[in-house]
Amino acid sequence: MTQKRGKFISLEGGEGAGKSTLLNGLRAFLEGQGIDLQLTREPGGTPLGEAARAIVLDPALKNMSAEAELLLMFASRAQLVREVIEPALAAGRWVLCDRFTDASYAYQGGGRGQPVERIEQLEQWATDGLRPDLTLLLDLPVATGRARAAGRGDADRIEVEADGFFERVRGTYRARAAADAARFRVIDASLTPEQVLQQAIDGTVHLLEDHA
Amino acid sequence: MTQKRGKFISLEGGEGAGKSTLLNGLRAFLEGQGIDLQLTREPGGTPLGEAARAIVLDPALKNMSAEAELLLMFASRAQLVREVIEPALAAGRWVLCDRFTDASYAYQGGGRGQPVERIEQLEQWATDGLRPDLTLLLDLPVATGRARAAGRGDADRIEVEADGFFERVRGTYRARAAADAARFRVIDASLTPEQVLQQAIDGTVHLLEDHA
Ligand SMILES: Nc1ncnc2c1ncn2[C@@H]1O[C@H](COP(=O)(O)OP(=O)(O)OP(=O)(O)O)[C@@H](O)[C@H]1O
Ligand SMILES: Nc1ncnc2c1ncn2[C@@H]1O[C@H](COP(=O)(O)OP(=O)(O)OP(=O)(O)O)[C@@H](O)[C@H]1O
Ligand SMILES: [Mg+2]
Ligand SMILES: [Mg+2]
Repeated sequence: MTQKRGKFISLEGGEGAGKSTLLNGLRAFLEGQGIDLQLTREPGGTPLGEAARAIVLDPALKNMSAEAELLLMFASRAQLVREVIEPALAAGRWVLCDRFTDASYAYQGGGRGQPVERIEQLEQWATDGLRPDLTLLLDLPVATGRARAAGRGDADRIEVEADGFFERVRGTYRARAAADAARFRVIDASLTPEQVLQQAIDGTVHLLEDHA
Repeated sequence: MTQKRGKFISLEGGEGAGKSTLLNGLRAFLEGQGIDLQLTREPGGTPLGEAARAIVLDPALKNMSAEAELLLMFASRAQLVREVIEPALAAGRWVLCDRFTDASYAYQGGGRGQPVERIEQLEQWATDGLRPDLTLLLDLPVATGRARAAGRGDADRIEVEADGFFERVRGTYRARAAADAARFRVIDASLTPEQVLQQAIDGTVHLLEDHA
């Protein structure tokens, strides 16, 4: 029998929105449903991607151009799709990814001002246009997210950006969600972790039914 | 008085063709002409670029996709143009670069089969379409270059490719040179280092006159 293709879920949101927390909860839920799950993250997820991540987040690289940042993000992503995500989905496994291409639209596009057409072109050939079946957007006021993330010690090269940057990131995420309601589920990330997880679980019901 | 823009010279060719050797000789000649010279190389030339170079050449990353390789090359290049090449040229300095965008057409395009339109798009926005004033192409039979380079110890991730790869690289370089004779000067790299240098010097005369 041919293997049914797995489902691809991405988690998006600003700094400290609760993506990693939700990833753990959703993992436990999906594995409890008998799903064979591949967890991964962006940038990173492969040896090449983790090396690119170290460059992108290095606070010493203060004058990194927006173009170089965008290209490094897509280098990591191109490798992740080919080395991890596509093979997993083809084998019937589900993929749960901490950020994906929407993050480039939000951060390199909205945040840094890289033209959306540029990102669309890269998406087309670097990821073969692969999009998640479901994107969970954890939406949170910038100040709340920053306060949550502040407890974590040294800030990386992106976390040190000004509030205006993160407001543009948030606005871009929300606009993308509004434009593609079939794929996105926006979750109010100021709710408790339990409530956030419950909404995320509700969002996966149609995927579980379809996969059964 | 406004500063006259510097000249940009790139050195291209396959492995072991003699680029680094020529770079040293040409540097001595140009500095002897009173030229204020910036030497650099690709991939690399900036902290970001050198980190990207380490990824690209890492022999452990055997399954690197052609897409990720192309994106890493342009990440390095985008940063090099903005951090080093453009500021130098704007300040009236000359730039001598060991490889530039032609190498992506030759290696990632010809060698790896990445579509030329993809490389053209990246060139347009990642380097703002910047092209050298003069490109010296050191043309050499593949076997000769490999024999020269073999003495150098451990091969990097690109040097281990098969001869067919390097034949495609050479063919792409020659085709590009034939299509843009005004910018390229093809040098028979099987000549002695002194003869190669003399031909390179001959190729810079019009730039020196124009700069004077
Ligand atoms: N729903 C929530 N309510 C309150 N605090 C939360 C909630 N979810 C997560 N937190 C806390 O906020 C902090 C950031 O959470 P987490 O690391 O999950 O966010 P993140 O989106 O992964 O951040 P980053 O973008 O920096 O990776 C942690 O201390 C976490 O315990
Ligand atoms: N014209 C020449 N004739 C013979 N040997 C040469 C010539 N030019 C360079 N060599 C020798 O060939 C070897 C490779 O030269 P070089 O390092 O300059 O090449 P390269 O193009 O920079 O190589 P790579 O692409 O690997 O950086 C060196 O040992 C060098 O001394
Ligand atoms: Mg996280
Ligand atoms: Mg060399």
